[in-house]
Amino acid sequence: MSEIRKHYFLDEYCIIASGRSKRPSAPKACGEENGSPSCVFCNGHESQTPAAAAVYKKGEILKDKDEERITDWDVRCIPNLYPALSPDAPDVENRVFEVKRGYGFHEVIIENPLHESRMHLFSDEQLLLLMKVYRDRVMHYQSQEGIKYVSLFKNWGKKAGASLEHTHSQLIAIPVMPSTIVKEKKAMAEMENCPYCKIVEKEKGTERQVYENKHFILIAPYYCRVPYEMWMLPKQHVNHLSAFNDDMLLSLGDCIRKAVSLLDRTIPELAYNYMFFQVEYDLSYHFNVSIAPVTSIAAGFEKNTGIYINSVPPEIAVGHLLEKAL
Amino acid sequence: MSEIRKHYFLDEYCIIASGRSKRPSAPKACGEENGSPSCVFCNGHESQTPAAAAVYKKGEILKDKDEERITDWDVRCIPNLYPALSPDAPDVENRVFEVKRGYGFHEVIIENPLHESRMHLFSDEQLLLLMKVYRDRVMHYQSQEGIKYVSLFKNWGKKAGASLEHTHSQLIAIPVMPSTIVKEKKAMAEMENCPYCKIVEKEKGTERQVYENKHFILIAPYYCRVPYEMWMLPKQHVNHLSAFNDDMLLSLGDCIRKAVSLLDRTIPELAYNYMFFQVEYDLSYHFNVSIAPVTSIAAGFEKNTGIYINSVPPEIAVGHLLEKAL
Repeated sequence: MSEIRKHYFLDEYCIIASGRSKRPSAPKACGEENGSPSCVFCNGHESQTPAAAAVYKKGEILKDKDEERITDWDVRCIPNLYPALSPDAPDVENRVFEVKRGYGFHEVIIENPLHESRMHLFSDEQLLLLMKVYRDRVMHYQSQEGIKYVSLFKNWGKKAGASLEHTHSQLIAIPVMPSTIVKEKKAMAEMENCPYCKIVEKEKGTERQVYENKHFILIAPYYCRVPYEMWMLPKQHVNHLSAFNDDMLLSLGDCIRKAVSLLDRTIPELAYNYMFFQVEYDLSYHFNVSIAPVTSIAAGFEKNTGIYINSVPPEIAVGHLLEKAL
Repeated sequence: MSEIRKHYFLDEYCIIASGRSKRPSAPKACGEENGSPSCVFCNGHESQTPAAAAVYKKGEILKDKDEERITDWDVRCIPNLYPALSPDAPDVENRVFEVKRGYGFHEVIIENPLHESRMHLFSDEQLLLLMKVYRDRVMHYQSQEGIKYVSLFKNWGKKAGASLEHTHSQLIAIPVMPSTIVKEKKAMAEMENCPYCKIVEKEKGTERQVYENKHFILIAPYYCRVPYEMWMLPKQHVNHLSAFNDDMLLSLGDCIRKAVSLLDRTIPELAYNYMFFQVEYDLSYHFNVSIAPVTSIAAGFEKNTGIYINSVPPEIAVGHLLEKAL
């Protein structure tokens, strides 16, 4: 009883194979070895990390000085100690093949001072602050010389690539446009209307809608690569976080909280990644966030074809997610 | 000390970040729970699997009958018990979004009757037979009505998605051209010469060459997504397994054996996927096999940008691989 589903507007496919369906088993809790006493992201341990580039504390935005560290913060943004890219990357010599220097920025956003904090338990106020931090930091790096794209994402749980348990997001500012965005933009350039606006129109109120608030809908997309994948789409066309007002930021935060909360209730401690897709200087792009739980492995077939085999159809996934939520 | 490297001819990038370099630790042995006594792929357990579509035994190609099973075989090809696609998939009703029925074939190729067998210990004779089976089965499915692509791959080890320990490959025949191939063909259509021929020309004999035999070179590619990734390229332009003679098949098998043998010596029991890229009806395509060891997790950044962060530059990887091989 399999189906092959085409992406909404790209030439990509997934196979929906309900015959292979089984609800994923719960993975182990993440990061057991990072108890709060030794966690470098916890309040009071600031000296064990690089100086913060931005510290959000009681409505103010501050900065660590070289030797001094601000404590009792609300959100703390620090350079990644093992950056993938760095602003002072050395030049590279010419090669037979194309190369650019590893210029860019890699920041960790520590979302909360408490080790035990979990995003699905955040208050509206905490969420709004975090979304403001996301907006600020993305805009800050987007305006840096030579930066083409700012990748904002969260890895939660070891299986999703998080090496530390304390809740945090990351941001990597890169000097190239990623192929994921280029591919989308190329497809969009050939269309009269925004395909994401069409998705909102067609999916709103269907069996694949998971949640709706003032500015966003949360759906399990028709083209769905992994079990319990969800997309967050603003109902009004908007291209980038920089165009969000506080009301929209709160809707976005609420939508993220709803998604991670439903996942956690359905499969406790499930690992996931969420990723922001946005283009600052292209008003035709439609901002979106996708969340990909880690329940399966992309194996030889996926690597060969780019086609994911998903054992939980999104319509069934929505049933699981909402059943437990009642 | 990072670098951003562009794919040889696609608009895709990877970041080579030697600053993040550390040799991956050895994962646990795969599939401990499948001891030989209970393994359905072992010789003597044929009744626990579907009837074989092809059984290679002492130079003959046979077929299981419905109730009877052939034993003491050399290689055995059976339908996957949990197929991703199937030839008798039912039609699907029209939808708001595009859909095709789940038509296709999903076969398991049991490479050897012995549970303990390991591909890197295969004899030339065993390898040649396996490569002939690959060629036969790919050609068989490629000729089926409606099949556009036959994905041939091997998952080795749990972390690479293998659910059974007994050494086997898989083949999924699909009714669509995968985006990975389409993307390559599109780029190749705009080029005067075959880009893979150019890779062979430029990489042969460099610090990224791992091995060479009569018909193939094995390289750690300049554009290298994961630590210890390797590509196997025929030195002469050839598009598809169906165009291989036995001598070329043996070179290919020898090249695969060398790759998995070097991986196993460098990191014992390392999980990996290898995948065949080929296009039967397009002579301009250049056959290749890539092998992707599983030492890291594709996390939020990779899912956001399609850009992989690889902590082991290929030039260093080749050093590790060959050092242990001496």
